[in-house]
Amino acid sequence: MASSPFDWIDEQARLRERAGLVRKLRPRPAESGLLDLAGNDYLGLARHPEVTDGAAAAARRWGAGATGSRLVSGSTELHAELERELAAFCGFEAALVLSSGYAANLAAVTALAPHGSLIVSDAGNHASLIDGCRLARGTTQVVPHTDPDAVRKALGTHDGPAVVVTDSVFSVDGDAAPLRQLAAACRESGAGLVVDDAHGLGVLGAGGRGAPHAAGLAGADDLVVTVTLSKSLGSQGGAVLGPAKVIDHLVNAARTLIFDTGLAPAAAGAALAALRVLRREPERAARVRAVASGLHELLTGEGLSAVRPDAAVVSVRAPSPDAAVRWAADCRGAGLAVGCFRPPSVPDGVSRLRLTACADLSDVQIAEAVRVISRTAP
Amino acid sequence: MASSPFDWIDEQARLRERAGLVRKLRPRPAESGLLDLAGNDYLGLARHPEVTDGAAAAARRWGAGATGSRLVSGSTELHAELERELAAFCGFEAALVLSSGYAANLAAVTALAPHGSLIVSDAGNHASLIDGCRLARGTTQVVPHTDPDAVRKALGTHDGPAVVVTDSVFSVDGDAAPLRQLAAACRESGAGLVVDDAHGLGVLGAGGRGAPHAAGLAGADDLVVTVTLSKSLGSQGGAVLGPAKVIDHLVNAARTLIFDTGLAPAAAGAALAALRVLRREPERAARVRAVASGLHELLTGEGLSAVRPDAAVVSVRAPSPDAAVRWAADCRGAGLAVGCFRPPSVPDGVSRLRLTACADLSDVQIAEAVRVISRTAP
Ligand SMILES: Cc1ncc(COP(=O)(O)O)c(C=O)c1O
Ligand SMILES: Cc1ncc(COP(=O)(O)O)c(C=O)c1O
Repeated sequence: MASSPFDWIDEQARLRERAGLVRKLRPRPAESGLLDLAGNDYLGLARHPEVTDGAAAAARRWGAGATGSRLVSGSTELHAELERELAAFCGFEAALVLSSGYAANLAAVTALAPHGSLIVSDAGNHASLIDGCRLARGTTQVVPHTDPDAVRKALGTHDGPAVVVTDSVFSVDGDAAPLRQLAAACRESGAGLVVDDAHGLGVLGAGGRGAPHAAGLAGADDLVVTVTLSKSLGSQGGAVLGPAKVIDHLVNAARTLIFDTGLAPAAAGAALAALRVLRREPERAARVRAVASGLHELLTGEGLSAVRPDAAVVSVRAPSPDAAVRWAADCRGAGLAVGCFRPPSVPDGVSRLRLTACADLSDVQIAEAVRVISRTAP
Repeated sequence: MASSPFDWIDEQARLRERAGLVRKLRPRPAESGLLDLAGNDYLGLARHPEVTDGAAAAARRWGAGATGSRLVSGSTELHAELERELAAFCGFEAALVLSSGYAANLAAVTALAPHGSLIVSDAGNHASLIDGCRLARGTTQVVPHTDPDAVRKALGTHDGPAVVVTDSVFSVDGDAAPLRQLAAACRESGAGLVVDDAHGLGVLGAGGRGAPHAAGLAGADDLVVTVTLSKSLGSQGGAVLGPAKVIDHLVNAARTLIFDTGLAPAAAGAALAALRVLRREPERAARVRAVASGLHELLTGEGLSAVRPDAAVVSVRAPSPDAAVRWAADCRGAGLAVGCFRPPSVPDGVSRLRLTACADLSDVQIAEAVRVISRTAP
């Protein structure tokens, strides 16, 4: 075969193969018949009729796409309505909707960390926050996972604008950041706090208002929060929440706002409908937490090594990448979909099953899931 | 007022104000009544009933969101179908759908420019390609705009993997890259070519198959193309097209694929429906080019300084940022929506009106648009 400029890929593919780390897409049918502990649809809203109707109605009324950057033709009154309701629900002055949670994190971190500033970033942060740090003009200092003293020390070394950047709930292990202590450390040195509440919105706080709300920090003038519309709200998209002047700044400075097409109306309409369901049925947030706790309790009762969940994610350790893949496949064979996280998607190199609680799961389904997981355990 | 860690923003806001460079979102109603030469809905498909029906039906059948990363729960058979049809239409072996064109560019550039590699990037490239270069582990060399000799020279300085990265049609001025010459330069030195065909798909090539197809390059084993679903296809999302082994590599290596929620089913369904309309009505591609040429001819006939369009974007120079803003506002007052590009969204610092052709525009509407633009010219 003739050589191609991409032949260096082949060697990487061989190494991945040998290490048992090959990933393949596995498209699912509309109705898989599996019990789903893999998706991030924590409140069971992605298929809620009001939510899918919200998507359909928005596409029909506003068009299938936003048609341009939000600064040109891509801002509709629907986007503005979603921004108002999201900000009000979570307790912030203003909000800005972007095309994904990933884009929201890139926007917030890059726009708030100018040249000469310091970014203090938790070692367990999500890839999108890490990419935000790498794109920002400021200097990044990575601190040990959930360690407010390390944050305090890092801030002490710097003179000038600084932000501390953290997930509220870490996506791999489902553990929570010490938000109150981080906020205190930030205030001592006049730093801003940027919290990615992707896994907190809809799950934590009164009626699912999120981790910053639960910590009594919502609306603080030194706090900026990012959320995604793709997990508890069952849609796609992301948003930045914060003081109006910060949001105005993002409109002028965030490249993933300025140079990206606005969120599709269907996604905005679905997220808005989901938010309204959540407001009407705040018990969904409590239920998903109860499901997660129940899963954890039963799994540890079976002798499995599961991390106590602070929100909806329950992480169960596996002895190796290979074993994790086989375990997940065996679960699937027994009718249960679970997530399987392996290097390089895990910061600590430890492979695990990643289970997600959903408010819709019944106690019978939880027991069945645990039975399958423990029966197939390596 | 107490000080906040974000007070440094105030000074930037003041400077922007003084320079006439403040941007604000202006949410539009569902029916603005304006003649639209601002959006990138080049083929008039965003509101086509088959396309909005495609969005609505997909949301109902597959849910409002994909519920997870495409590697976990976020790949549906709908995504796979869109990938097959997009790849076949554009003439490539395989395709990978991501949540935006921005994400597709980050994915392609970062995954194809490993440590030790060289990226040769056109000075006029889109922000998302630039961010891809900045996130990639390779070293970036920026070359003068549309200059194959400079590309050849840059490639000559490097030993090891290299990619040349370019827009096919540049988003600001609507001018085209010399793709055949760039491909020849790449082949001389064994480099790969990455082409962002965001503004070419649906407009250039036979029946809108895109700029690489028009250049006789589609399907080459040294070419990777990114497209967006948010312009000619009237939806949201992006895709990478290329050899199957490159696509497999992206599934394993691209962070905006691995760590981002899959594209919302409604957006995938809308893009698929739009692609089918385009296949059935290939004359839409020729029509949008004719509209753009007509606009350019009439505008220059009125003595305005417009760039000859290579695709659907017609750029008209304005004497200053202020004048551009006033010009666009006057057009709007007269019933015409146009884009207004100012620093920092323009690589050369020149402010302009950015007009976009749409296949749906009638000759009467084109004449009316030109009348408004020339009557309100500064
Ligand atoms: C913590 C965290 N932040 C951000 C994101 C990105 O959000 P989105 O998928 O909506 O782009 C994710 C996951 O996808 C996440 O887990
Ligand atoms: C040349 C180019 N590439 C990529 C993009 C990003 O695509 P998307 O808006 O679908 O994220 C755009 C515009 O939005 C563009 O103009």
